[in-house]
Amino acid sequence: MADEKWKTGITSIGVNRIRVRGYDIARIMEKLSYAEAVYLLLKGELPGKAEAELMNAILVSSIDHGASPPSVLGTRAVISGGNSLNAAIAGGILVIGDWHGGAIEQAAKILQEWAAKAGDDPARIDEIATQLSAWLDDKKRRMPGFGHRIHTADPRTPKLFEIAAKHGYKGRHIALCKALEKVLSAKMGRPLPINVDGAIAAVISDMGFDWRLGKAFFIISRVPGLVAHAYEEMTRERPVRKLGPLPYEYDGPPDREIE
Amino acid sequence: MADEKWKTGITSIGVNRIRVRGYDIARIMEKLSYAEAVYLLLKGELPGKAEAELMNAILVSSIDHGASPPSVLGTRAVISGGNSLNAAIAGGILVIGDWHGGAIEQAAKILQEWAAKAGDDPARIDEIATQLSAWLDDKKRRMPGFGHRIHTADPRTPKLFEIAAKHGYKGRHIALCKALEKVLSAKMGRPLPINVDGAIAAVISDMGFDWRLGKAFFIISRVPGLVAHAYEEMTRERPVRKLGPLPYEYDGPPDREIE
Amino acid sequence: MADEKWKTGITSIGVNRIRVRGYDIARIMEKLSYAEAVYLLLKGELPGKAEAELMNAILVSSIDHGASPPSVLGTRAVISGGNSLNAAIAGGILVIGDWHGGAIEQAAKILQEWAAKAGDDPARIDEIATQLSAWLDDKKRRMPGFGHRIHTADPRTPKLFEIAAKHGYKGRHIALCKALEKVLSAKMGRPLPINVDGAIAAVISDMGFDWRLGKAFFIISRVPGLVAHAYEEMTRERPVRKLGPLPYEYDGPPDREIE
Amino acid sequence: MADEKWKTGITSIGVNRIRVRGYDIARIMEKLSYAEAVYLLLKGELPGKAEAELMNAILVSSIDHGASPPSVLGTRAVISGGNSLNAAIAGGILVIGDWHGGAIEQAAKILQEWAAKAGDDPARIDEIATQLSAWLDDKKRRMPGFGHRIHTADPRTPKLFEIAAKHGYKGRHIALCKALEKVLSAKMGRPLPINVDGAIAAVISDMGFDWRLGKAFFIISRVPGLVAHAYEEMTRERPVRKLGPLPYEYDGPPDREIE
Repeated sequence: MADEKWKTGITSIGVNRIRVRGYDIARIMEKLSYAEAVYLLLKGELPGKAEAELMNAILVSSIDHGASPPSVLGTRAVISGGNSLNAAIAGGILVIGDWHGGAIEQAAKILQEWAAKAGDDPARIDEIATQLSAWLDDKKRRMPGFGHRIHTADPRTPKLFEIAAKHGYKGRHIALCKALEKVLSAKMGRPLPINVDGAIAAVISDMGFDWRLGKAFFIISRVPGLVAHAYEEMTRERPVRKLGPLPYEYDGPPDREIE
Repeated sequence: MADEKWKTGITSIGVNRIRVRGYDIARIMEKLSYAEAVYLLLKGELPGKAEAELMNAILVSSIDHGASPPSVLGTRAVISGGNSLNAAIAGGILVIGDWHGGAIEQAAKILQEWAAKAGDDPARIDEIATQLSAWLDDKKRRMPGFGHRIHTADPRTPKLFEIAAKHGYKGRHIALCKALEKVLSAKMGRPLPINVDGAIAAVISDMGFDWRLGKAFFIISRVPGLVAHAYEEMTRERPVRKLGPLPYEYDGPPDREIE
Repeated sequence: MADEKWKTGITSIGVNRIRVRGYDIARIMEKLSYAEAVYLLLKGELPGKAEAELMNAILVSSIDHGASPPSVLGTRAVISGGNSLNAAIAGGILVIGDWHGGAIEQAAKILQEWAAKAGDDPARIDEIATQLSAWLDDKKRRMPGFGHRIHTADPRTPKLFEIAAKHGYKGRHIALCKALEKVLSAKMGRPLPINVDGAIAAVISDMGFDWRLGKAFFIISRVPGLVAHAYEEMTRERPVRKLGPLPYEYDGPPDREIE
Repeated sequence: MADEKWKTGITSIGVNRIRVRGYDIARIMEKLSYAEAVYLLLKGELPGKAEAELMNAILVSSIDHGASPPSVLGTRAVISGGNSLNAAIAGGILVIGDWHGGAIEQAAKILQEWAAKAGDDPARIDEIATQLSAWLDDKKRRMPGFGHRIHTADPRTPKLFEIAAKHGYKGRHIALCKALEKVLSAKMGRPLPINVDGAIAAVISDMGFDWRLGKAFFIISRVPGLVAHAYEEMTRERPVRKLGPLPYEYDGPPDREIE
């Protein structure tokens, strides 16, 4: 019975035929960047130039953050126990959760719910930022995507907003995020800057992505980082070494510039 | 004690400072495509134009292959049981193994070991392909990366080799892979075409990647596909539905072209 | 600095010395059943006779439920892709979630919150069951741990309650659970029986376990079942077979009795 | 078509009917210990008294080993990142691999292959132990299941062998394991004692289990330990704390005895 079949709208497969959201895979390989292909896959449509550059910058921004994030520990522990590369990547991704990499999803949810109150009236953004700040106080919640454990000014945030601005990309979510930064900083009497998770949350919200995909941007971006750590552990360390108790230091290439 | 510190050569982190393999993250966000950043992360150096295009085409080629691969079942089952997006992606990656997505690693290992016998003498490639075919017979092994469960002519293979050829990119691994295709097809009396895994194995071997990274190219490429399936399951299906027993059909966009 | 050490109260380890919650491991191996050791580990104290039998019956009750639960699919898919036994068990456990195996946690949470309203007055249980039923209606929620996809009378429920009754084990959570069964069945005009998850939820609540450990009882119990399915898949099936599309049938030992 | 159905011989399910290896689940709940039920599930038959006690002692022996094993780090990292209990247990099980918990499988494989050479002639065991020692030297391999990172005399080993001896349980695998201990210790000029993994490997081999199930005994045994660590992390520590860099100390109950 035809109606017993379940449906998928992602990719159609036939003999010698692979079409992602309707487009031929060989053409995508030739014509699209990987970031554009990711956009197509998740959004269902081809990105414009602004969306393509923003998606690329988002995926690059979180590709690695050194050896201290807990997901790196998860991945290295799985290799250290004597397991395959795919198990190690799975082990790292399992660690990504509400408290690690989860700020994109949480911030996007809040921005989408509150920016909707502004409708199409940009003049209302400042007022809504103030209301949102009061709501956070009332709920005793910190705004996710603001502040950083290490960085006082996350270097990825201005670059992402710069790329958005270059394309005149300024929807109500970016606006609300920036307005909120002012309100929160004023309230605290010191800067509480938007971190890369907050910036990604604002940008993907303006791009029309559901907040429930928030963690996906971090996961897709970070997998190559986890691979690099798995491979370094595999090739450079002894099995079942003490993971953690000793500090580490960077011994890779010195600072250099892309010409 | 300084020598009790373990070392990592991937990313150095300081206050407001993130440098991947020595390069500033904000500059990478602006100057590099995501595929180039992946190359930098895994290889330690910036790619040339050929490597950048090849890496992009590799990552795009395996981004999704419909709802039937077992990794999709793994991801959908985790969502269906009532779990988070990251657990679902981990569940799918766990299914990727020696028999699903493992052909890249296995083919690259064989190609790297046998092509090394040719040294720098391209004239010896055909001879080595014949020896390799005999070795496979002797071991009763099928050559990984050849033939396909569904496709008689994998549409991704010629596109990947075309991009390589355009850049004059033809090292001994691609040469051996193609020579082997002729030998194996002649022996079987019918075409045994290189599939996308075999093509990727040949190309990454010519790019100088360790075969032990083979599964990584498939994993990195496929994560967005798994995300798309997780999201579709989450938004379109009931929890704990019967997964599998019923066939499915594609109901996404019809065939269309990238202009 | 001593106060930089983090603390654990589970097991102390020294040279040739392993003490779980203070007890020597060799003595535990000799004196306790595994179910008693699990109780000791999770609760911190030795069980009495009633708790020991109940814990044993709980762990046995959910040890396997055939090949159709989605966690079995997860485990078999990981083996089928060509992976290790531990990855396969992890893959199955990932599928256990809010909608599969999650009813113990959810039911225990509700029973613990509502039974607390009765204080030590058993006469108030019926009244609270009625209030709880109204609350569920109001929230448009179904009570977790009641009814079953397959069984109209879950054979594990009466056995678990029978063991509890034999020991005079009847706290307010079991009482509330049974009172609720009457209220809900009366409201629906047909039996809505407590399933094994609901029964476990009631019993562990009377045993004083935190509802946040609810999924743990199902996970611990089910791991041997997942192992059996992984091993059967590994030894009896071809790699990357179609998982799901075809129905299965049981061909193990016929019905038999424990003498 | 009946012959398109795949087969499973583990558990048959019908309405209000659950039979594991042919036995009714309610009867198993009442009559068998959990360790016996695990034996039934994995072996297909009911254990005798000796097998029941040995299985119980095996499962208890590895139930926890403090906070330092890498699988504990895996589990705690997943909780620390903000994830569910089942994801945390999966994360810990992923770390169990060839170098952590893998010695049972490896030792059982070697013991089964070499003990088979003795056939039913116990007089040949010493000779085979000497040959096996030479083979290990030749392969430059250390014998898995011997020696321990912490213990000079693993307290679990003699207890397990004592239980076996009490029941006159002494097959060729236990014999070979003990003979090998003498040969290896003589060769090294100092004791190289059998650790708990080696002892389990010998015992399960005499019980007739396939070495490919080796990791299963460790996984089944250790899951409650991982649960205890997950729950302690969840209830006692802050999210995303530094895992590892600081040492820990035990603050649970002091030494005490089972009466």
